[in-house]
Amino acid sequence: MRVLILGGDGYLGWPTAMRFSGKGHEVAVADNFARRKWVADAGGDSLTPIVSLAERIEAWKEASGKHIESYVGDLAEGTFAADLVRDFEPDAIIHYGEQPSAPWSMQSVDNAVETQQNNVIGSLKLLWGMRDHAPDAHLIKLGTMGEYGTPNIDIEEGFIEITHNGRRDVLPFPKLPGSLYHLSKVHDSHNIHFACRIWGLRCTDLNQGVVYGIETPEMQMDERLLTRYDYDQAFGTALNRFCVQAVIGQPLTVYGKGGQTRGFLNIVDTLQCVELTAANAPAAGEYRVYNQFTEIFNVAELAEKVRHAGEHHGMNVRIDNVANPRVEAEEHYYNPVHTKLPALGLQPTLLSENLIESTLVVIERYKDRVVPDVIAPSTAWRPAATVGQPAR
Amino acid sequence: MRVLILGGDGYLGWPTAMRFSGKGHEVAVADNFARRKWVADAGGDSLTPIVSLAERIEAWKEASGKHIESYVGDLAEGTFAADLVRDFEPDAIIHYGEQPSAPWSMQSVDNAVETQQNNVIGSLKLLWGMRDHAPDAHLIKLGTMGEYGTPNIDIEEGFIEITHNGRRDVLPFPKLPGSLYHLSKVHDSHNIHFACRIWGLRCTDLNQGVVYGIETPEMQMDERLLTRYDYDQAFGTALNRFCVQAVIGQPLTVYGKGGQTRGFLNIVDTLQCVELTAANAPAAGEYRVYNQFTEIFNVAELAEKVRHAGEHHGMNVRIDNVANPRVEAEEHYYNPVHTKLPALGLQPTLLSENLIESTLVVIERYKDRVVPDVIAPSTAWRPAATVGQPAR
Repeated sequence: MRVLILGGDGYLGWPTAMRFSGKGHEVAVADNFARRKWVADAGGDSLTPIVSLAERIEAWKEASGKHIESYVGDLAEGTFAADLVRDFEPDAIIHYGEQPSAPWSMQSVDNAVETQQNNVIGSLKLLWGMRDHAPDAHLIKLGTMGEYGTPNIDIEEGFIEITHNGRRDVLPFPKLPGSLYHLSKVHDSHNIHFACRIWGLRCTDLNQGVVYGIETPEMQMDERLLTRYDYDQAFGTALNRFCVQAVIGQPLTVYGKGGQTRGFLNIVDTLQCVELTAANAPAAGEYRVYNQFTEIFNVAELAEKVRHAGEHHGMNVRIDNVANPRVEAEEHYYNPVHTKLPALGLQPTLLSENLIESTLVVIERYKDRVVPDVIAPSTAWRPAATVGQPAR
Repeated sequence: MRVLILGGDGYLGWPTAMRFSGKGHEVAVADNFARRKWVADAGGDSLTPIVSLAERIEAWKEASGKHIESYVGDLAEGTFAADLVRDFEPDAIIHYGEQPSAPWSMQSVDNAVETQQNNVIGSLKLLWGMRDHAPDAHLIKLGTMGEYGTPNIDIEEGFIEITHNGRRDVLPFPKLPGSLYHLSKVHDSHNIHFACRIWGLRCTDLNQGVVYGIETPEMQMDERLLTRYDYDQAFGTALNRFCVQAVIGQPLTVYGKGGQTRGFLNIVDTLQCVELTAANAPAAGEYRVYNQFTEIFNVAELAEKVRHAGEHHGMNVRIDNVANPRVEAEEHYYNPVHTKLPALGLQPTLLSENLIESTLVVIERYKDRVVPDVIAPSTAWRPAATVGQPAR
């Protein structure tokens, strides 16, 4: 299979590229290195020392004997997306090429605009490029569980059957996203669904939970193959950030009550999910949505798990309930369905304190690289003067 | 009330500006003249001879003694939106400032991108500007009934109560838009709902049906006060286009079977609806959706009405069922609720053959200005090579 990975220099994109290449597929990555720039601009850096994309590709060649092709450019600019699809002729396109941080999107009007511009226009140009040059390719698009928000009913996988005034239809599941980043993914989902309905494209929208983890097996061959690992307030997700805080002796910053409940999955399961999805393409015109996570935790539980694992490892770990910079329900119903990927054969790697402890061990190796002052939350969802009830 | 009208040089924006100004409100209009440019680029022109915005404002001053302020710029560019809101300090913002044509948005990747860029980023910058400079202003945003598509259940006004697995919630009505233009409005709706939930802004989203009509009372004072009237395949809507075709002796072009059923309203009722909406502002943080139309017709029925009215007026009117350039259901269930505006006091001006005949009379006055070859559909929803079933 010819597999094109957009955002192939990122946290998930690079491990995905190695995985598909290692399995014998023809792989190309595309990236504009925006993630490296955004993190650097905020004064942060990947915990892991990552080399350039060209060096990664060279190291992979040495380690595996396999070649990964690369394209450097921005999906939202000019004809890059269309040229890419025409040139590489992919069978599958795995699309991680978006601005992935909710706090970053809420930081300023410029960040808000760049997020929706980069994500929505980039994906729209990709869809149009597929329409013209690769109408049979399978688009595997990374969405987020955050598109749904926290409604008071069970969350289905993309669509819900609604009976209303004696009539019935199966319609897109209503969305209540919690940031301008999450909104950009909702907009993508609507545009992609349309491209399937009207142009007959085939797409799987993976509504992914919060990913954690620092290693995939391929990285153990050479340190230059490491993927990035962010722990700052914008790009570091809850569990990854907590692990770094535990290692450097900073209190784990739980936002508000910590009752925010979300789906989580290990980075190795992200790879498993995209592999299973790629191996099972939808029909022409079909728009599928999979809810991609393996376990549900609330944030306070996660912090407790890190504390236990840290203490078992001889660390003294404290937890701080800091004022919540976001506007979100801190106690809510949450029951999302996630049966489609298990039905394809997903074997989850569940979160254990052993697994956290082994993550802490890897982090300790790079402990001196941590920039401690980028971890505390610095982006509020509301201007300081605004008061009101928390939204759901 | 201080009323800011975005897109105030357009088909609906200009009449709205005169209406509010005439009623004694302080009015400002903002426009980037994109609509004039888009229509001219396609070789078309307004049926009515429209003067420049500055001349309109001067003529309005002469006719009414009232001043309308004007701002020239693009909401999506730089800090125009924020500067505008800060400078004018509006109580109400009536937002028509978007690319309004479905065929135009489907014509090329550049048009698709410009539509979503202009509409979504323009509105996003406006929302951020309101957050910072006018958090109490009432945003009255023109959306479209086309956001809903044609689901197999009754369409509610923005939200639907869903009972699912024994639990219940009231959630945004699921959207199935039929073009990249309609999608831009869906994206706007999600962004605006978020701005109300998170920032406490107050907004009414008017999901408007297809508007027809050529005159409002204010225009009868001076020909320089006429609003634009488009009849081309991109910017002319069904009924307005049919009336021009009847006058110039071209067959009325019904797309496919003509069973496409939609909500319609007279331009004078658009003004009535925005007036009623402005007079009844929502609470801080409230996001309201009104379905704004007065009657439901299918396209074949409309063509018949124009034919009857034309024949009564002594014209020989033919109807052509041409191949449908769009991808849409030509026979479908359609029952949208529209009770909220009538509850505020909307008194509909219903479509009668008399009213069509009087429209034909006005069009005859400008008959020599018609460019006949921009009327036939020239934009297909699908690339020529693509075949498949019509989407719903």
